[in-house]
Amino acid sequence: MAAKTSPLAPARFPDLPSIGGVRFASHAAGVRYKGRTDVMLALMDDATVAGTFTRSATRSAPVRDGQRKLALSEGGAVAFLVNSGNSNAFTGRVGEEAVQGICTAAAQALGLPEERIFTSSTGVIGEPLPWQRIADAIPALQASLDPAGIEAAARAIMTTDTFPKGASAKVSLPGGTVRIAGIAKGSGMIAPDMATMLVYVFTDAKVGRQELQEIVSAATDRTFNRITVDSDTSTSDTLLMAATGASGVDAAGQPEFVAAVERVFLDLAQQVVRDGEGATKFVEVRVTGAASEPDAHRVAMAIANSPLVKTAIAGEDANWGRIVMAVGKSGAEADRDRLSIRFGDITVAKDGFRSPNYSEDATSAYMKQQELVIGVDLGLGQGAATVWTCDLTHGYIDINADYRS
Amino acid sequence: MAAKTSPLAPARFPDLPSIGGVRFASHAAGVRYKGRTDVMLALMDDATVAGTFTRSATRSAPVRDGQRKLALSEGGAVAFLVNSGNSNAFTGRVGEEAVQGICTAAAQALGLPEERIFTSSTGVIGEPLPWQRIADAIPALQASLDPAGIEAAARAIMTTDTFPKGASAKVSLPGGTVRIAGIAKGSGMIAPDMATMLVYVFTDAKVGRQELQEIVSAATDRTFNRITVDSDTSTSDTLLMAATGASGVDAAGQPEFVAAVERVFLDLAQQVVRDGEGATKFVEVRVTGAASEPDAHRVAMAIANSPLVKTAIAGEDANWGRIVMAVGKSGAEADRDRLSIRFGDITVAKDGFRSPNYSEDATSAYMKQQELVIGVDLGLGQGAATVWTCDLTHGYIDINADYRS
Repeated sequence: MAAKTSPLAPARFPDLPSIGGVRFASHAAGVRYKGRTDVMLALMDDATVAGTFTRSATRSAPVRDGQRKLALSEGGAVAFLVNSGNSNAFTGRVGEEAVQGICTAAAQALGLPEERIFTSSTGVIGEPLPWQRIADAIPALQASLDPAGIEAAARAIMTTDTFPKGASAKVSLPGGTVRIAGIAKGSGMIAPDMATMLVYVFTDAKVGRQELQEIVSAATDRTFNRITVDSDTSTSDTLLMAATGASGVDAAGQPEFVAAVERVFLDLAQQVVRDGEGATKFVEVRVTGAASEPDAHRVAMAIANSPLVKTAIAGEDANWGRIVMAVGKSGAEADRDRLSIRFGDITVAKDGFRSPNYSEDATSAYMKQQELVIGVDLGLGQGAATVWTCDLTHGYIDINADYRS
Repeated sequence: MAAKTSPLAPARFPDLPSIGGVRFASHAAGVRYKGRTDVMLALMDDATVAGTFTRSATRSAPVRDGQRKLALSEGGAVAFLVNSGNSNAFTGRVGEEAVQGICTAAAQALGLPEERIFTSSTGVIGEPLPWQRIADAIPALQASLDPAGIEAAARAIMTTDTFPKGASAKVSLPGGTVRIAGIAKGSGMIAPDMATMLVYVFTDAKVGRQELQEIVSAATDRTFNRITVDSDTSTSDTLLMAATGASGVDAAGQPEFVAAVERVFLDLAQQVVRDGEGATKFVEVRVTGAASEPDAHRVAMAIANSPLVKTAIAGEDANWGRIVMAVGKSGAEADRDRLSIRFGDITVAKDGFRSPNYSEDATSAYMKQQELVIGVDLGLGQGAATVWTCDLTHGYIDINADYRS
């Protein structure tokens, strides 16, 4: 499992600001992995919480538990307790008992109501979670809580990730400055409906629960729901955002705050694509001119999910015929004779035919870049959508043909 | 392009019976490939014709032309003229002119009305078809027409196929015996809505056009629309079936005939999966207990198309957690606690949890087989569907990361 760091990874983990009112701890609880941390705790003395979850019909026990708890209370102390190595998904009643066991132990040790303990689990599906190991780790976690522990927390939640993922923003509002910092994990089973991943974002702004939920839902839709690695949807996708209000600055109705949350989400979402299993290319698919925005999204996802498009990109082949194929299969309204396709700034096809200026050499040279933009204009209307994906390589097969063993 | 024959290929091309009233010819026209045949002609003096086509919004010029012609006349002489190497898709007005050019030349040489010439093209998308080479080949094709030329025809239409595909059936009806024989090509871009391929089936039975169309549509739905290699849908999928009536035997309203057509379709469809690009395993996915038949089909396709399921199969890993994931993302109604999963006869998960009898050793031994059955029972209702697919291997990446060049 000592995979090489993705070639698309950022140079280093960013410097994340401490967020007033949030402390982190990590611990090697031995859930499954040896010699590394695999449990993280984020503890807040007072925060409002919002979140989004996978829509999978077979979602995991912690997801179901978190969905239930999210609506229960407006504020107060809250903990996020996350383990890697085992997803506690498809573990039936035993899985629910595991969540309950962890929450009871954490509530007791931390002095919180059980409904303010949110757990997440990521890793293998279908194996009973050795939850007692997590419960036993709580005292050690509690003893090492640290406002600066966020990078270690990002590392503790990794599974097949090759680098830890973090992002932050600072926003000047009328009442003063607020900060946002977040971490994420995820590199396979990444697809729409909450790209398969765990995401925890924190801010010291003051935001009411309902407004925070609206901000989180809208930002998720424009970021994490616009990325795909392999079209597979996890049973464990969880995004939680906590607002502590420790800055004393009210972010209610502040568009700069909303935009900053979306920037942090997008940064984390793109890092997940950059860590796509086996990825060697980072690809932005921009669809314009669709009959509607949902049609644009459908076309962009059909392109981003097509194995034939993704293998062509891996082979640095400007195979725009496969883009045409993906447009055609998407189910969106399309007119062959109005379709145009660009690779970067190079128009390869226009009005239903190969561009008269098409140069195989120039296009092939472009395809050798590590970051690519595929532009598709459908020529029908105003619908537009952008999604992000990676290529499909031998590395993906290597990782996934032998992940469990 | 001298790919090794798929390990899942039949031992040899089957002995196909001659079909009264049908003659075949093949020729090396040099459309794109060197040193092999790339054009085939099937000529019938009198036949009713039915067909199904890709539903892609960017379907090719020959597909659009064939769809238009299919409804025009009840019988008479008819020709299928097919080339490999270039799909004449996304070639705009030039593509339509190419189809017209071929049809005009063929109609003149063969003495048929233009609307009785059906052309198909398969291969690279987006390159102008050098149609004059095909037109120039017609005299040579005409000179070599042979009732026994079907195997050579099957070879001429291959692209990335590693073996030619044929199947046949003989049916005793009240009026006597009728024969059915068909050929197919296809190994990538194989997905629902007419798995990306070309299929030509012939019978000496007497069947009216409307009844033949109903038989063909229903059989397509239960066979070619139930296979998938990579979830990508071609712009060129075409299935044509011709009934010459040369046996003098009326097949109208004969269920044995309907069943035999479906058997031939299924045999060809499964051969396409067996030639799936890079395939090393042939996988049958049987879904039962769904709330409805469309739900069962949706779940089966979600499993069969999941890159994580397909790579696990390539790795001979009985990773049933990924089956759970695919059920969850399918959009079908599912209840985790009623779900059971089998690999062959081995129940690996039952009622939402790992089976108490689960044996990793027995399951791993089963996964080493070349032909696998994955059974999923949703425990909700009577909906059932079976689909066929293959694994996702390094071979798929090899073939598709460098197909064009």
